[in-house]
Amino acid sequence: MLNELITKDERDAVYKTIFSRRDVRKEFLPDPIQDTVLQRILMAAHHAPSVGFMQPWNFIIVRNIETRKKIKEAFVLAHEKAAQLFDEEKSQKYRKLKLEGITEAPLGICVTCDRERNGPIVIGRTSIPETDIYSSVCAVQNLWIAARAENLGVGWVSIIDNVKLKKILGIPNHVVPVAYLCLGHVSHFQEKPDLERTGWLPRLKMESVVYDEKWPRDT
Amino acid sequence: MLNELITKDERDAVYKTIFSRRDVRKEFLPDPIQDTVLQRILMAAHHAPSVGFMQPWNFIIVRNIETRKKIKEAFVLAHEKAAQLFDEEKSQKYRKLKLEGITEAPLGICVTCDRERNGPIVIGRTSIPETDIYSSVCAVQNLWIAARAENLGVGWVSIIDNVKLKKILGIPNHVVPVAYLCLGHVSHFQEKPDLERTGWLPRLKMESVVYDEKWPRDT
Repeated sequence: MLNELITKDERDAVYKTIFSRRDVRKEFLPDPIQDTVLQRILMAAHHAPSVGFMQPWNFIIVRNIETRKKIKEAFVLAHEKAAQLFDEEKSQKYRKLKLEGITEAPLGICVTCDRERNGPIVIGRTSIPETDIYSSVCAVQNLWIAARAENLGVGWVSIIDNVKLKKILGIPNHVVPVAYLCLGHVSHFQEKPDLERTGWLPRLKMESVVYDEKWPRDT
Repeated sequence: MLNELITKDERDAVYKTIFSRRDVRKEFLPDPIQDTVLQRILMAAHHAPSVGFMQPWNFIIVRNIETRKKIKEAFVLAHEKAAQLFDEEKSQKYRKLKLEGITEAPLGICVTCDRERNGPIVIGRTSIPETDIYSSVCAVQNLWIAARAENLGVGWVSIIDNVKLKKILGIPNHVVPVAYLCLGHVSHFQEKPDLERTGWLPRLKMESVVYDEKWPRDT
């Protein structure tokens, strides 16, 4: 029954999963993913909220290593371009970071947003048209949490030229690739996010991100 | 320990929470939310993934009823404008739907994205600048799942003019209001999403949203 209450133990399991979810790059193992497990994860993604129940997402499962090598090449180009944007010190640090596991993980999932699905007028999307994209992002986060609950790692590859990615995967014009995710078993989960652990940036204090009633005047 | 494995029972609790999460409008109760519960939910949101560990989000907690009445007014205007976009039949159906609980729920949470945080060059955001917004959406989804795990309802008000919302909440120019959420106790959770239950749209079949290797040629 989907209207049941969640017990305290169940709640704690949800928090454990949310707090231990990581963006995985280095720790992927090549072991294949059981199809029943993948189906459960995708079902969780498909049960994300969507504006006007639009369900604008698709999930392209990329296993073919030749395709993944092409995606990796697109990453390498975008990554090199990005490295040049930082100052010398940051750039050196940046180049040392492992930022994707495209060919190490056994598969990739491209989560897309079909901007014309159930259109042209979608209930709830009339004021803020980007809410369709937001819906696909909610699907990404559901997928990520479900994967962690299955002890699988997910890594979001955001350093990529979407024009190239669309060409490689044959994605039509009206569809936006929202995320390219690597999915796989892991040697272990890190206790902290890579960028926090390596001192790139600290986690912000909760008090600094929560405001009462209004945005404070002095910020 | 945040690198522990998730057990089968814990996994099932996560799925139960994901599948029973609803976008709540009608079922809000006025009962106040315990501060410790609200803090846990916000902590879960703050542990969302973010591009370059940017953590671009803020959470404005809106309890003041005068502020919420202003937000409700902004909704009513946007809602009326939207109703005129549908054809006669859909428009009548649309007007009967309850689409927000702004004044019924005891509080609102505006989740924002500060597009200049830790900028100007954010690691991972160099190819797709909107990934900062995506990060704030991930925080929304973490918040929503955590709230369901606490047996609290969340309703996303997407029918609103963001220019008005920014003015009401004093949000500066470089910050985007990504979501205005109502949060509260509920009389009950619905078994199915409102728009599915009322026949607005069916849930898509899983097979129709999952593709192998590439976007199929004939779509």
